[in-house]
Amino acid sequence: MTGSDSPAPKDGDGARPRARGVARPGRQDWSAWPEYDAATAGFRGYWYPVTWSSHVTGTPLAVTVCGEKIALIRDGGRAYALHDRCPHRGVPLSLGDQQFPGTLSCPYHGWTYRLGDGQLCAVITDGPESRICGKVTVRTYPVEERLGMVWVYVPLANEEPHPIDSQLPEEMVENPFVMGGRIQPRTGNWRFAAENGFDEGHAKYLHRTSLWRLFKPMPTWNITKIVPGGRWIYRVQQEVHWDAIFPGVGRWSNTRWWKFQPPKETFNIGNTGKPKKLDPVIEKCDFPGFASLSMPGVLRIVYPNFIHYEFYVPVDADNHRYVGVMINFTEGWKVAGFYLKYLGAIRWLFHGQFTGQDAWMVDVTDAPPEKLYRPDVSLTAWRGLAQEEFAKKKAAAGAQ
Amino acid sequence: MTGSDSPAPKDGDGARPRARGVARPGRQDWSAWPEYDAATAGFRGYWYPVTWSSHVTGTPLAVTVCGEKIALIRDGGRAYALHDRCPHRGVPLSLGDQQFPGTLSCPYHGWTYRLGDGQLCAVITDGPESRICGKVTVRTYPVEERLGMVWVYVPLANEEPHPIDSQLPEEMVENPFVMGGRIQPRTGNWRFAAENGFDEGHAKYLHRTSLWRLFKPMPTWNITKIVPGGRWIYRVQQEVHWDAIFPGVGRWSNTRWWKFQPPKETFNIGNTGKPKKLDPVIEKCDFPGFASLSMPGVLRIVYPNFIHYEFYVPVDADNHRYVGVMINFTEGWKVAGFYLKYLGAIRWLFHGQFTGQDAWMVDVTDAPPEKLYRPDVSLTAWRGLAQEEFAKKKAAAGAQ
Amino acid sequence: MTGSDSPAPKDGDGARPRARGVARPGRQDWSAWPEYDAATAGFRGYWYPVTWSSHVTGTPLAVTVCGEKIALIRDGGRAYALHDRCPHRGVPLSLGDQQFPGTLSCPYHGWTYRLGDGQLCAVITDGPESRICGKVTVRTYPVEERLGMVWVYVPLANEEPHPIDSQLPEEMVENPFVMGGRIQPRTGNWRFAAENGFDEGHAKYLHRTSLWRLFKPMPTWNITKIVPGGRWIYRVQQEVHWDAIFPGVGRWSNTRWWKFQPPKETFNIGNTGKPKKLDPVIEKCDFPGFASLSMPGVLRIVYPNFIHYEFYVPVDADNHRYVGVMINFTEGWKVAGFYLKYLGAIRWLFHGQFTGQDAWMVDVTDAPPEKLYRPDVSLTAWRGLAQEEFAKKKAAAGAQ
Repeated sequence: MTGSDSPAPKDGDGARPRARGVARPGRQDWSAWPEYDAATAGFRGYWYPVTWSSHVTGTPLAVTVCGEKIALIRDGGRAYALHDRCPHRGVPLSLGDQQFPGTLSCPYHGWTYRLGDGQLCAVITDGPESRICGKVTVRTYPVEERLGMVWVYVPLANEEPHPIDSQLPEEMVENPFVMGGRIQPRTGNWRFAAENGFDEGHAKYLHRTSLWRLFKPMPTWNITKIVPGGRWIYRVQQEVHWDAIFPGVGRWSNTRWWKFQPPKETFNIGNTGKPKKLDPVIEKCDFPGFASLSMPGVLRIVYPNFIHYEFYVPVDADNHRYVGVMINFTEGWKVAGFYLKYLGAIRWLFHGQFTGQDAWMVDVTDAPPEKLYRPDVSLTAWRGLAQEEFAKKKAAAGAQ
Repeated sequence: MTGSDSPAPKDGDGARPRARGVARPGRQDWSAWPEYDAATAGFRGYWYPVTWSSHVTGTPLAVTVCGEKIALIRDGGRAYALHDRCPHRGVPLSLGDQQFPGTLSCPYHGWTYRLGDGQLCAVITDGPESRICGKVTVRTYPVEERLGMVWVYVPLANEEPHPIDSQLPEEMVENPFVMGGRIQPRTGNWRFAAENGFDEGHAKYLHRTSLWRLFKPMPTWNITKIVPGGRWIYRVQQEVHWDAIFPGVGRWSNTRWWKFQPPKETFNIGNTGKPKKLDPVIEKCDFPGFASLSMPGVLRIVYPNFIHYEFYVPVDADNHRYVGVMINFTEGWKVAGFYLKYLGAIRWLFHGQFTGQDAWMVDVTDAPPEKLYRPDVSLTAWRGLAQEEFAKKKAAAGAQ
Repeated sequence: MTGSDSPAPKDGDGARPRARGVARPGRQDWSAWPEYDAATAGFRGYWYPVTWSSHVTGTPLAVTVCGEKIALIRDGGRAYALHDRCPHRGVPLSLGDQQFPGTLSCPYHGWTYRLGDGQLCAVITDGPESRICGKVTVRTYPVEERLGMVWVYVPLANEEPHPIDSQLPEEMVENPFVMGGRIQPRTGNWRFAAENGFDEGHAKYLHRTSLWRLFKPMPTWNITKIVPGGRWIYRVQQEVHWDAIFPGVGRWSNTRWWKFQPPKETFNIGNTGKPKKLDPVIEKCDFPGFASLSMPGVLRIVYPNFIHYEFYVPVDADNHRYVGVMINFTEGWKVAGFYLKYLGAIRWLFHGQFTGQDAWMVDVTDAPPEKLYRPDVSLTAWRGLAQEEFAKKKAAAGAQ
């Protein structure tokens, strides 16, 4: 007997269940991507940048990533991450300070944890022979530093983390570069931020009023293909339309007399297009497209003279951290030129007002339900990638 | 078989159910008026004033009525109301703007809806041949303009709206008048506001300190009858007591040496009393009482020289919009006198401080449970009217 | 048949249930003290100080204690407490005022309640013959005034309150004293405040940076015994350690060159120690310890020259009221000296910054789960006392 009132189906009676993982046309929910649907507070099992390295000092700092409250502290030049809750009475360890090298003490009773392994190694108010020492541990998180930022690994289970370099965009590893960037707390779920970043549809319309694009026209509509390439998916533009007449509605174009003429061809049209003016290091990479995305929410946009990255770091269901980075593989005296350009313009126009328009939309997006259209192939491809990559991740963690 | 465990009653076995719609003495809940009890966010199936006509322009405006989020926009002189949510990704359309005449475009991807019927008529970022055009619709709401305000019809199901003029107070239709008014967002459920407006009991006590009544005494207690008249109920005062001695407690009166002497007779005592000094237009109406109320929450108070109306517009369970209007059927040069009086005194004393006392009480009222007293016949009559009128409304909508 | 699926135990079959009230080692929840666990909004059946007597005047004041909303008013020199909700329409009576001596009237319709028994004795807007008079009552609460404060008894059921003097610290009754104090609303559950107050562990560590202790060193760790004594439990220090070397971690001490040398013996070591310098009145009391605690959350700390009390008054699950009092049994001209000391230093250093550190921790404590250590015997003894005393209280109330 089951709890259901309906009789058990007889042999041959039952309909074949629908195949999973395939979005049905007209689908309005995310059940085709169950892992993605469940990742409200982010995918565990990845490295996440949480703050600038310079903000992690001997005074602990509280951050939240994937819903986990974490205390960051620097000791002997190295950054450490501990679960931000003293098991004694639940007080955040980030309110405490360092009473002994290599440790962090809770502000309330001086319970003192070893930074390396989180073990309770001294309880100041219980004397040297405290019997609880060694019997209590706070969770620690693997920490690395890259791009001048502290990265924390949020484990899926108790697995060892994969090397952070295997998660970073390939061209960032072993190549020297200069960079500028911004880290901002933002409202809205991290998935809306990731989807917005890779979204083919919105940029031309939403950002038409951005100062960053004051003199550069943007197309009206494109035809875009999403091409998988290893752990990335690439957005490849196949057609670019600068002007359109909508039947019964009117003409629409983003070209203006004060803007440059649109290029005859965009540099990244087609499968084989490579950025022409990029530095030699980039030239060697195989960039079949302008924008690409990888897990756990890393966007790469290749501009002629630099590469822009966005990391969408989950905080909780309603908040994420936006990490925008602009890099250039310049060396020598050209570095000064990059910083001049970054600090004088890019930081304010691009990492400020332009991405601020995205922040605005990410904050007000409210899906599902949703109703997708042709350009949303960029969204569904990303959801498929996330679903597939995370399944691999889970299988690997389970195998450990 | 039903879902219930109890056996079906045999013939002759069942007790006659209690008559509905009649409050039992000592009753403390609202179960006698189930539709009214359920109308937490307002009664659907009515026209509601939502803002001043002058506030609805080519730039969309967001309002909420009966829990529905609505975007208002004016085009070609006419006001339109659309459900304030783009079906694509849930972005409020009120954040968008007009890219083509007769349409409203979502700010995110340029999904463009026809104002008249809400149909998706162009998707800027999908080109002229977008296959989704014509397949997506946002709900539209009937809109009318009266009293210098935009009114929206919130449907019960998919019914055609009744003519707005059949819902307005009769004397407002076809008679020229001058008016002044205020629209204010207020906290508290709309039903507390409607009940407060028609409440016979509170005015004499709560408003005794209002500046509006500085020189006019108010009675201590009255005996009042509620008289039904078409779609209205009327409050008819049968006895007016200016002074009272409460046994064992003391004497209480609102008369003061600096106030005018209370009138021997109030102008509206009795069933046949009519305001003496009203303009001829009003004289023709049959006003058996001073205060009257009709669905979906419209109060009319007839003063000797003007008529005051209050519309209690539901926003959500905890908020309503107060729309207070003062009209006079004056024409010609007397219009200037009305405006002088309204802007110089009525607006601040009556639509300001006096109704502010009501707003204060509506905000802190917390019922049910409640314990009603004799003057609350005005409340129970209103609940009965609402219950009955809404049942008719539902029957009519079902019949369509 | 019971609701349980398990068969009834046969004779001799059943295991002896675990003794209640004893915390098992490693326990992380509060199920050993079920009444304490349930007392989220405080223990009912006790007197609580709610505000300064001078704040209770002819204009009503709203307070919340044990989750009950109460209106306080003074009439004829006496303070009264009524449930702060008019049964008519739920409006807070504390928004009303006094229309007749010995009563309080609701601001909305003038429902007038007798302060002594809460009975509806007049309804201004219903005239002298109102039939509802005498049929409605608002709950009243017993009120007393002690220590310049108004105390309210929050009943468990409908029992008569015990005399307030039987609940006050014994030495406060019948002895003249001078006092200074502060009442502060604070965030955090009242139990965290009570536990913090009696907690043996934290003071030496948390308060090491307080100005109050700028020149007085505090121990590093102690060995403390909790001794029951009537309705109080006493904290008796058996060992005091000023310095400690934690193996593999380092040395820790709170002694500094600018602080006084730690005393060879603290005045209150051992079971028989009595404060040496206390006034004769105190000398007569049997104070076996420095700090003591009693229900429903009263802390007493005996300093050489005065006694400090803290009353932790439950407001709701997340808020409490901190009532800190410093008294001295001085009389005559020495009273001026006490006030000088209190207003000039104690009020700011001790009742300000020092207890502010406690407020900080009480706000961020988040237990259970918790992990207790040796010094937490002070917490578990208090929970046991509360559990036991409240069981007696309930039994007594049931017997009435």
